[in-house]
Amino acid sequence: MVKLHLCSRAMPTLLVLCSLLILGNSHKAEARTRHHKWEVKYEYRSPDCYKKLVVTINGQTPGPTIQAQEGDTVVVQVNNSLVTENLSIHWHGIRQIGTPWFDGTEGVTQCPILPGDTFIYRFVVDRPGTYLYHAHYGMQREAGLYGLIRVAPRDPEPFVYDLDRTIILNDWYHQSTYEQAAGLSSIPFQWVGEPQSLLINGKGRFNCSKSPSLGTDVCDTSNPQCSPFVQTVIPGKTYRLRVASLTALSALSFQIEGHNMTVVEADGHYVEPFVVKNLFIYSGETYSVLVKTNQDPTRNYWITSNVVSRNRTTPAGLAILNYYPNHPRRSPPTVPPSPPAWDDVEPRLAQSLSIKARQGYIHKPPTTSDRVIVLLNTQNNISGYRHWSVNNVSFSLPHTPYLIALKENINGDFDTTPPPDSYDSVNYDIFSVASNANATSRTGIYRLKFNTTVDVILQNANTMTKNNSETHPWHLHGHDFWVLGYGKGKFDVKNDSKKYNLENPIMKNTVPLHPYGWTALRFRSDNPGVWAFHCHIESHFYMGMGVVFEEGIQRVGKLPSSIMGCGATKAFHHRP
Amino acid sequence: MVKLHLCSRAMPTLLVLCSLLILGNSHKAEARTRHHKWEVKYEYRSPDCYKKLVVTINGQTPGPTIQAQEGDTVVVQVNNSLVTENLSIHWHGIRQIGTPWFDGTEGVTQCPILPGDTFIYRFVVDRPGTYLYHAHYGMQREAGLYGLIRVAPRDPEPFVYDLDRTIILNDWYHQSTYEQAAGLSSIPFQWVGEPQSLLINGKGRFNCSKSPSLGTDVCDTSNPQCSPFVQTVIPGKTYRLRVASLTALSALSFQIEGHNMTVVEADGHYVEPFVVKNLFIYSGETYSVLVKTNQDPTRNYWITSNVVSRNRTTPAGLAILNYYPNHPRRSPPTVPPSPPAWDDVEPRLAQSLSIKARQGYIHKPPTTSDRVIVLLNTQNNISGYRHWSVNNVSFSLPHTPYLIALKENINGDFDTTPPPDSYDSVNYDIFSVASNANATSRTGIYRLKFNTTVDVILQNANTMTKNNSETHPWHLHGHDFWVLGYGKGKFDVKNDSKKYNLENPIMKNTVPLHPYGWTALRFRSDNPGVWAFHCHIESHFYMGMGVVFEEGIQRVGKLPSSIMGCGATKAFHHRP
Repeated sequence: MVKLHLCSRAMPTLLVLCSLLILGNSHKAEARTRHHKWEVKYEYRSPDCYKKLVVTINGQTPGPTIQAQEGDTVVVQVNNSLVTENLSIHWHGIRQIGTPWFDGTEGVTQCPILPGDTFIYRFVVDRPGTYLYHAHYGMQREAGLYGLIRVAPRDPEPFVYDLDRTIILNDWYHQSTYEQAAGLSSIPFQWVGEPQSLLINGKGRFNCSKSPSLGTDVCDTSNPQCSPFVQTVIPGKTYRLRVASLTALSALSFQIEGHNMTVVEADGHYVEPFVVKNLFIYSGETYSVLVKTNQDPTRNYWITSNVVSRNRTTPAGLAILNYYPNHPRRSPPTVPPSPPAWDDVEPRLAQSLSIKARQGYIHKPPTTSDRVIVLLNTQNNISGYRHWSVNNVSFSLPHTPYLIALKENINGDFDTTPPPDSYDSVNYDIFSVASNANATSRTGIYRLKFNTTVDVILQNANTMTKNNSETHPWHLHGHDFWVLGYGKGKFDVKNDSKKYNLENPIMKNTVPLHPYGWTALRFRSDNPGVWAFHCHIESHFYMGMGVVFEEGIQRVGKLPSSIMGCGATKAFHHRP
Repeated sequence: MVKLHLCSRAMPTLLVLCSLLILGNSHKAEARTRHHKWEVKYEYRSPDCYKKLVVTINGQTPGPTIQAQEGDTVVVQVNNSLVTENLSIHWHGIRQIGTPWFDGTEGVTQCPILPGDTFIYRFVVDRPGTYLYHAHYGMQREAGLYGLIRVAPRDPEPFVYDLDRTIILNDWYHQSTYEQAAGLSSIPFQWVGEPQSLLINGKGRFNCSKSPSLGTDVCDTSNPQCSPFVQTVIPGKTYRLRVASLTALSALSFQIEGHNMTVVEADGHYVEPFVVKNLFIYSGETYSVLVKTNQDPTRNYWITSNVVSRNRTTPAGLAILNYYPNHPRRSPPTVPPSPPAWDDVEPRLAQSLSIKARQGYIHKPPTTSDRVIVLLNTQNNISGYRHWSVNNVSFSLPHTPYLIALKENINGDFDTTPPPDSYDSVNYDIFSVASNANATSRTGIYRLKFNTTVDVILQNANTMTKNNSETHPWHLHGHDFWVLGYGKGKFDVKNDSKKYNLENPIMKNTVPLHPYGWTALRFRSDNPGVWAFHCHIESHFYMGMGVVFEEGIQRVGKLPSSIMGCGATKAFHHRP
């Protein structure tokens, strides 16, 4: 009313602003449907100055940000123009309550979208926060098919800021996903190696002069496509930066030279605020941090991302924090800040432990669980091929997606023997290369009793290389889980579970498993559907590092025929 | 009987040979089923010394030769291991009588085969001769998915030879099919250009030193994979060489230094023998030629392929005819023979005119036709994109393959208006760039009355470049056609049709349309199904240069569900 009154008296120049305010207000009142029409195709781009084919959405990579308000319905009509390649798109962090068939996980919840076909995703974004979307098929995400989802809240948030900005971090390979996959599936195994560069909002910088053999038609540092990303800021303001990582491989340290960051949101949940100089972020995670532009306004500052947890050979990702009205391309007068030591787990573990649910916004977990599943993460051999496994089972997809096979009672398409709930924790030495590194490739899944409480203990171990254990960011579809604890070494069922944080654990959908450590999660099996839970490193998932949970399949509604077309679902029905 | 009698007295060392003879004999008696199990995947290969990802069948490119006898049933179980890419395989020259759903033409006769899926092709090879198979999806054929089908006759052939050998010719690009397709679908249009090399039986030689920037890990002329193909021959014998072309783009001249070739078979039909020094061969064609190894046996000879009809920049394809017992790698002491002038149409037209059905093996064509379809071949623009068109319609595939849509009466999936039966032949100047080069992209098809005689006149014209007209090899699925005539300039309905060869026209499935010329074909619409007819140049077909014929759809049997899964055929049937 006040606003309306003011607006009625406003000068013409203010009218636009006024109507925007009214419109913004009215959004809060009722849920809307947000329509998007996407064309997905291969195009040449030079995101880090190196020209290669990338997968674009409406010509963009990263794709357009989806903006919506809590309770809205998002409709994305995807047209596959990839000629001979299928696709599927996962809405990362959106729980798909009532629409498990639109989770976008090829082989689990849907058949892939064929070239030439149009597929319509339709789902409700029921909670505010920062989410992601990306391809969930083969290693297609790496080709550039990813972006951000911003869901505005209906209620006031427990922090204030002046402006809202987005930073998507990624790493970038020059090999195509086909080339990478061919190497991973070879004997001898050919590892994808470290990425060539790190991207910030889709822009990076490969040092072309390091490979002088590449002509300027292939690698050209003067190409404007790879000029560094510039975030222009007004001095004296508080910015909310939504920082997301969709790296193929790398764990990152994100930093803004000379500026502290106050973490206030993680994976769509409010965080008890804590201040960091550098934010550790793992593939599949999102954070909101508050940044005050309270430094010397006569200069610009470096925004950096750096690889941690792997012996980094990839140069830092660089962007510019541009204090208005300095020239946006003016380089900061300093050298970019040094990243933390790549092999120091302590600060990373410390950050993981710092993340607690915000007072007033705590969802208390059940105090006990109905089932505990311990998942040992190992590198393995299967018939001479290199794989990753969980409890010695390397994940393999059936011909008919689980959701369809289970809902329609299609038998014989996957292994009905579930994978084991634990490993030989007494005898397995997590600090050594396994004496027998052989595993099996299987399609079996975990079937959870509906509406029960499930604990998952992720247990890390040595890889097939001596004195090496990697960081694995695990992502759960269809749920948020409580993060009950992290620890070093082998999880001790008796004692470690007593130290769980049951007071104010954060809820997340993606969580790191630190080298030689364990991470304990709890979730409720209350979302009818079939849900993937997997390492978010693209090559690790491709090599079998994941499991699938089924819960309440009999409560799943009628499946749309659009998700069918593969395995046992090739047929034609005459419509009456 | 005589053989058996002989064998019963034979020495033990001859017993094996004897049983082979008996076995060979018994094959003539009854049709067999030939089972093949293929795994299709991407692997690194260096067919011309340049390392790139290629599509292999059981590790090979070209794929394994299918050997069968007239009347046999061939079963090929294809397992798609391309991770995110579909496939389909066309059995080129096999008419698929009674099995139109196994023609392997994505979008016309089947949905594509999804990654992870196993598809079983099953068809009868009802006639002896030399045929091909290759991918028929996007530009996938170019990635290496192709091979030969040899069908042995039940009856004696009208020529004799001692040994039977195969030569598959191809051209080769270093860009991936994705890169090529992205360029073709761009504004501005980016033409794929001339191929980097010519392959003979999958081996070629790119001059790595011309691109010194390519490291030896990418381009290495000492790689044994790209040592030239060697055909070892015994002096004084007659060889049947089955020469086939599966080039992406190039028309070729094939030659064996110092040796004449007697053409005896074309596309599975016996030819009235004629002798050539060089054989012109177009993509999709097969020939059998007889070659006598009657030259100086103390040396080896060059086998060459060379581009014709385009201003060649691609170096000659070279292989070695190795007279036993000379060393197979000993280079011939001569320079390879010079190819014919690339732009001289006359000898190519002359060869086309020389090909007649062999006396005693003539299938006489009907003397009149029920319908004449004139197809003007032009280069065009559609919304700024470059296309190829036929009668100003650029071919576009519907979401549901025609065969399924028509058989199952699925409406609305493609344009029911047929494309035109002719063009404005009175006013169109085939020797100039069209004043209005715009065309339309459509899914309409030609519906033929069943069991009628159809004439197709292919009419060439100027491209969008001044003084330029290209060679288009047109391939018809599901039929052989009679080649009634070739001519220069614009086809004259009144007079040219009077000069048709109705006496001994050859039957073929692929035929060249020469620059600025016409080619007249006749066929019977007697094979129930839906059949593609298109330019066999991979990029031209990709850009819309094709049409589709339907005939006798109501006589097509029950479609297998394995061909479904796309468009309107995504569903699940509970089996009773």
